Amino acid sequence: MAKSPRKQTKAYNNFAEELANSVVNGDPRAAGRVLSLIDDRDPLAKRILKRLYARTGRAHVVGVTGSAGTGKSTLIAALTAELRRRRKTVGILSIDPTSPFSGGALLGDRLRMREHFLDKEVFIRSLATRGNQGGLSSSVYEAAQLLDAMGKEYILIETIGIGQDQLDISRVAHTVVVVVAPESGDEIQGMKAGIMEIADLLVINKTDLAGAEEMFLNLHNAIAEIPILKTCATKNEGVAALVDSIEKNRLLNANHKERKIDLSRSQLLALIRDGLMAKLQRTIGESSVEEWAKKIAERQSDPYTAAEKILANLKL
Amino acid sequence: MAKSPRKQTKAYNNFAEELANSVVNGDPRAAGRVLSLIDDRDPLAKRILKRLYARTGRAHVVGVTGSAGTGKSTLIAALTAELRRRRKTVGILSIDPTSPFSGGALLGDRLRMREHFLDKEVFIRSLATRGNQGGLSSSVYEAAQLLDAMGKEYILIETIGIGQDQLDISRVAHTVVVVVAPESGDEIQGMKAGIMEIADLLVINKTDLAGAEEMFLNLHNAIAEIPILKTCATKNEGVAALVDSIEKNRLLNANHKERKIDLSRSQLLALIRDGLMAKLQRTIGESSVEEWAKKIAERQSDPYTAAEKILANLKL
Repeated sequence: MAKSPRKQTKAYNNFAEELANSVVNGDPRAAGRVLSLIDDRDPLAKRILKRLYARTGRAHVVGVTGSAGTGKSTLIAALTAELRRRRKTVGILSIDPTSPFSGGALLGDRLRMREHFLDKEVFIRSLATRGNQGGLSSSVYEAAQLLDAMGKEYILIETIGIGQDQLDISRVAHTVVVVVAPESGDEIQGMKAGIMEIADLLVINKTDLAGAEEMFLNLHNAIAEIPILKTCATKNEGVAALVDSIEKNRLLNANHKERKIDLSRSQLLALIRDGLMAKLQRTIGESSVEEWAKKIAERQSDPYTAAEKILANLKL
Repeated sequence: MAKSPRKQTKAYNNFAEELANSVVNGDPRAAGRVLSLIDDRDPLAKRILKRLYARTGRAHVVGVTGSAGTGKSTLIAALTAELRRRRKTVGILSIDPTSPFSGGALLGDRLRMREHFLDKEVFIRSLATRGNQGGLSSSVYEAAQLLDAMGKEYILIETIGIGQDQLDISRVAHTVVVVVAPESGDEIQGMKAGIMEIADLLVINKTDLAGAEEMFLNLHNAIAEIPILKTCATKNEGVAALVDSIEKNRLLNANHKERKIDLSRSQLLALIRDGLMAKLQRTIGESSVEEWAKKIAERQSDPYTAAEKILANLKL
């Protein structure tokens, strides 16, 4: 414990400054530390990110999302290899706990990714977003900004599945790539609305499997508005064309201020929501929440009335 | 538009009263209407749920979650058939847009579910949770309570995937069933933490596929704390035993007040969060949020400072 709040603040500031500088110099160990702070929701993380923010805005953030079994991780590895061939620096963030980038999956998969784990221009990290009530949390914005400040030109974010997470990735990424594969259990009809809502690019991966061509034709008929690409990531087929399309989308984005404002608004609202909930829990106190929860559980009150009363007592 | 707020309130109250009464009488059309109001976040929904809340607390809410391709929907159909054989009433809520219960998936799947769609003691509805920033949203609590008030004894909630949504289901359901299947692309190591965190019961479905027995042994070795069951939903194998296990878990739950308080607390906090955000956006105004978003996008400010300033201006 520090002797006084003022001293703690000074030491804190120095430490924040030091970490921020190391991140700007591209130090992966410092970046790893700040990511841990972000993951732990340590208030120090925000201090560091404040300092780094002016350095951000240069990276192109690509969300890669799809169900389990579509080969997202392998595709990200292939994209990374192609971007490296083009002399671009890459950051990879995985929010899929089953991904080899997160330490999940088979040893074989992890071995295939080894070249990237050893490349110092590629920064790979997984994010634990579990336990957070706010969906794809503010920590994803923060992690992306950290990698941006490190100077990574492309940031690839891997998320799983259709639904909540997938929708949220469009609030963080400049370009959203939705990956599907034949035999992955995905049904076009069910996916159509979700894809239309978020995808900038649609990729059919695993074209070596039966049914790929049929899937392409079906998707092509169902979804005319979004470019559809075919890849076989394990054989590196179609990957260069996908990078070209991402590049095209990046240039398109650069001219669209609106998307950048949208992303800023989303992050701002997420931060405000987190801050409000923290503030609220301090203000009304845990014991009051507990009392209400008990009353509700025993049907002496209902959650709607309880929430209204708590909110009414706040001078907002 | 109503002529005066008072009149609108009276008409509203009458309508709310009428719908609430119809729901208590088990009218599926009225329940469908209220579910639409819940889905649309119409304030009328909360009014109705307030009236209904005293009628809730009797249903047993079962979350059924797992990746795409694990056969969740077919398992839910089989569970429903078994519960109906035991003369229990059932409500099904699907939050998986690719589920046959949501109108996604293949016609064949929907046909297989037809018996349930025609059974008037089974109420089936899908919920669109997309577009909501708060993860598995408060609308799921509300929908479950509605079905509870209708008198459904078992409420089965289908959610997709590992990750955020899966975690959240444990905040709504009394019993969480995690479904895995051989060849579904799920990797035990990656799933272990997620399963341990939320599963009350673990089910290996599709035991007719190769690798099922190996998967069982691996899971059995990795996860000793949670009962593991084997089912083949398409052949109705193991389904009665699963219902027995759910039943056992229900009785266990009935003696555990703590879980009920946990669920009440979660719902209360979700409602407060939604209410606070709505209140906040009214208070600070959209134009102020827009100005900040622009400044942040242009790097004239950073989101952390902006959020702090907005929060500091609120007297909380």
